[in-house]
Amino acid sequence: MEALEMTLLFDYYGGLLTDKQRQCFDMRYNQDLSLGEIALDLGVSRQAVCDNLTRTEALLRKMEANVGYVSKDLKLRKVLSSLEAEARQLAGHSDSDVCRMAQHMLQSLDSLKE
Amino acid sequence: MEALEMTLLFDYYGGLLTDKQRQCFDMRYNQDLSLGEIALDLGVSRQAVCDNLTRTEALLRKMEANVGYVSKDLKLRKVLSSLEAEARQLAGHSDSDVCRMAQHMLQSLDSLKE
Repeated sequence: MEALEMTLLFDYYGGLLTDKQRQCFDMRYNQDLSLGEIALDLGVSRQAVCDNLTRTEALLRKMEANVGYVSKDLKLRKVLSSLEAEARQLAGHSDSDVCRMAQHMLQSLDSLKE
Repeated sequence: MEALEMTLLFDYYGGLLTDKQRQCFDMRYNQDLSLGEIALDLGVSRQAVCDNLTRTEALLRKMEANVGYVSKDLKLRKVLSSLEAEARQLAGHSDSDVCRMAQHMLQSLDSLKE
């Protein structure tokens, strides 16, 4: 659960971290390496890796507390997916105007996925 | 134009600045004070105010370059507003099922404005 929360925060705010923070985080959470393996790979102490990750995790949590993009975006995705389901239903309607409008809605919703 | 760009970036990334950066930015862009007035108010030199603002502006631009929320959100707003116009049209349809579904779409879209 915590790893999931962290990778989600990283997806949103990773661009605001330093290269070093990003690299360390990626090795830990995406490549699933141990602290010892990361330390060996980067030529630093295990403690330095641990400190770096702890700081990064706190920073990511602080960014979300201050800006809240993750929670806003999760809500948005939910709404967009319900709109898509409804537009899909309307796209099968016998009235060609309804059909055409629903098709356009689906296109608009698709354009957000790019 | 530049002031508009800056206040827009500030709306999105202001939460990631320090208190001091936020205060200085707010006095300059929202309260429209001169560098001299801000300096007097904060008890620092005019040059210090200028440096602080320059750093903040560069930081906001860097955040947008790395994360791109402003451009994503502007695109999103455009799509949502076209979906809303279409749902509003469908809400007046003679078929009560279309009507009901369009009403629900409008409610979903409204919930994103909160």
